[in-house]
Amino acid sequence: MSQQRINKLRKILEEKSLDAFLVSNFYNILYLSGFKTLTENEREGWVLVTTKNTYLFSDNRYIGSLSSRGVKRRSDLNKEEIASLPSVARNDIITKLITPEKGLIKHLQEIVFEEKISRLGIEGDDLKISEFNRLKQKLVNVESIPTEKLIIKQREIKDEEEISSIRTACQITDKCLEDIVKTIKIGTSEKEIAFKIEFWLKEKNYDLAFYPIVAVDKNSSLPHYDTRSGDNKKIKKGSIILIDFGAKYQDYLSDITRMIFIGNPPQEMINIYNHLLNAQQKTINYLVIMRSHDNYCGKEIDQYCRKQLTTSHQPLIADIYPHSTGHGVGLEIHEYPKISPVSTDEIKAGQVFTIEPGAYMTGKWGMRIEDTVLIKENGVEVLINFKKQLLTLDF
Amino acid sequence: MSQQRINKLRKILEEKSLDAFLVSNFYNILYLSGFKTLTENEREGWVLVTTKNTYLFSDNRYIGSLSSRGVKRRSDLNKEEIASLPSVARNDIITKLITPEKGLIKHLQEIVFEEKISRLGIEGDDLKISEFNRLKQKLVNVESIPTEKLIIKQREIKDEEEISSIRTACQITDKCLEDIVKTIKIGTSEKEIAFKIEFWLKEKNYDLAFYPIVAVDKNSSLPHYDTRSGDNKKIKKGSIILIDFGAKYQDYLSDITRMIFIGNPPQEMINIYNHLLNAQQKTINYLVIMRSHDNYCGKEIDQYCRKQLTTSHQPLIADIYPHSTGHGVGLEIHEYPKISPVSTDEIKAGQVFTIEPGAYMTGKWGMRIEDTVLIKENGVEVLINFKKQLLTLDF
Repeated sequence: MSQQRINKLRKILEEKSLDAFLVSNFYNILYLSGFKTLTENEREGWVLVTTKNTYLFSDNRYIGSLSSRGVKRRSDLNKEEIASLPSVARNDIITKLITPEKGLIKHLQEIVFEEKISRLGIEGDDLKISEFNRLKQKLVNVESIPTEKLIIKQREIKDEEEISSIRTACQITDKCLEDIVKTIKIGTSEKEIAFKIEFWLKEKNYDLAFYPIVAVDKNSSLPHYDTRSGDNKKIKKGSIILIDFGAKYQDYLSDITRMIFIGNPPQEMINIYNHLLNAQQKTINYLVIMRSHDNYCGKEIDQYCRKQLTTSHQPLIADIYPHSTGHGVGLEIHEYPKISPVSTDEIKAGQVFTIEPGAYMTGKWGMRIEDTVLIKENGVEVLINFKKQLLTLDF
Repeated sequence: MSQQRINKLRKILEEKSLDAFLVSNFYNILYLSGFKTLTENEREGWVLVTTKNTYLFSDNRYIGSLSSRGVKRRSDLNKEEIASLPSVARNDIITKLITPEKGLIKHLQEIVFEEKISRLGIEGDDLKISEFNRLKQKLVNVESIPTEKLIIKQREIKDEEEISSIRTACQITDKCLEDIVKTIKIGTSEKEIAFKIEFWLKEKNYDLAFYPIVAVDKNSSLPHYDTRSGDNKKIKKGSIILIDFGAKYQDYLSDITRMIFIGNPPQEMINIYNHLLNAQQKTINYLVIMRSHDNYCGKEIDQYCRKQLTTSHQPLIADIYPHSTGHGVGLEIHEYPKISPVSTDEIKAGQVFTIEPGAYMTGKWGMRIEDTVLIKENGVEVLINFKKQLLTLDF
């Protein structure tokens, strides 16, 4: 699969008249090569895609064992041998060992010379100024050209392997929330719920997509309440609970938000909940309708959703939610397309994003309903299956 | 305390003839202002230090509540009011709200004009090329000057508040490992131990400093074995277990490595363990001796430690460990000073770093012993207290 991703990138490079592209971003490296290091920010791995070859640079901790096997080219191996290899080696990627004596720059100098590279694309939205300066200084006769969003925009359209992982991450999320809901009692605190979600996932060798937001009562009125640093409210009779979390499965993420009510909520809350749910569901239906049209983009979905909340007979919600209606989900929790009031990201088959309108009563309480959805050629698949009807717990 | 840190930075700015400094790095912002956002890489907060003022820029999620209180200057408040404020407001920091209409750049344009800033320092080792280009383009008549390691080098010397947090993080680490050792049995897997460490900490509202390395038998021969992606070996009779982990307490970290042996290890292992322990302990003693000398640096400690392993009567270990002897620890797990073969970082009072020599028998097993130590004016404090004598478990 990685080979197809690399070939797609090569087409983009050709359009931009680039001879090669240096990938520094952790997630872009993972996307292209299947290779992952322990830290995201310590520059332990790099990928270079040229017109002919793909190179992976890393140190002994990560690729020592690959190099020592002498594995260089897939073409040298039989089918069984290929299947038994780590994904990096499976994808015909040439590994280059970084040592204290021979760092990235020295490797690049050699390759640039061998492959006669004169225009080298770099990730302008990832590479640091000081890294860029060193590169320009050391790679003489090479023009280093900053680009923006080149691979992250390619990552917007998920392939089958990616969709399968996200679908599983969403199923895990459904199951996790079902189990967690059963553990909620009077007196349970926000952090206890967040902790239970984390442990439920990690016990099963999954991971969190991000630290869960669990917001009780007044805290639910803050759209991005931080449970870790918050006042850790406990659940009491009549409480409203917002739970926003996601799972990570094979590096891919899911995202969900659901509301839980302790006892029967007042009619006002029920009305607003149903109003919000109606808007969220209608927006998903709108996506289905729009699949038969060409050229619609993030802002149209965002605007449609906000309109549902304000223009029905009773404008229950005065202040419309101060965040986007949704965001792409993949290897990272915030990807493309953006579903925001100003987004011109075109909606296309293969995109995975959230639909998550909210209703916040400042200083009182708030609600959000969020699903992760997949855009298909002829429709939309809602990847989250956890029920959305008013969920009340009685004790 | 933050005010002192900001004043120190101002002195550096003066030396470099900079009128102001824009801080983009998550940990540097936390260090200077006590302010922390949910994500490290999404640029949710910025700090600007000018000769007169310190500004914090962030959005409604983080500083909405501060601004709405109208808190601008500490001088307007009485002592009790100051104590009740979030740390950002306590430190006389002016908060500026980032909105879709008024982003960082617009705020900077105003301040640059008001305070007549012509030379603006930026973090060249943190700011991305595209961010830098936007800044240069939008801040006309301002020279944007990339700097390197300016604040991270300042962070090398810990103040009392920081030392106190690191000391507590080390105490937590000691206690955690004591409890974890009790849970180890025949059949326990690497991931189970890592999981127990993580949950022990999180249950108590602490956090991991980094994902624990738990390496059993052959895996212990890999200096940076990744427990998450590894083959999850189980403990059996005669196993050797390497546990390398740390705790996070009030944003500050600790780092420890200890070995555990199941049953009585063969004499060769015991000899190498004692040899390694002797080298590690002698290096700590060497630090104490060197405190009475001026001007010694990381590489001298590193070389001293390696020499202890190779030049005693019996050179038990042929291959000297392929990693540094140590690294600074603070808000991040790898800080300054570096204790490596080439490090010219001078050793000074207030530094906190690790001493962690290892002995690795390729393909067989490996050992590492690691403490976190604090350099004082007249000596050295070993912050880790977990015992270092050969630890064997019998079942």
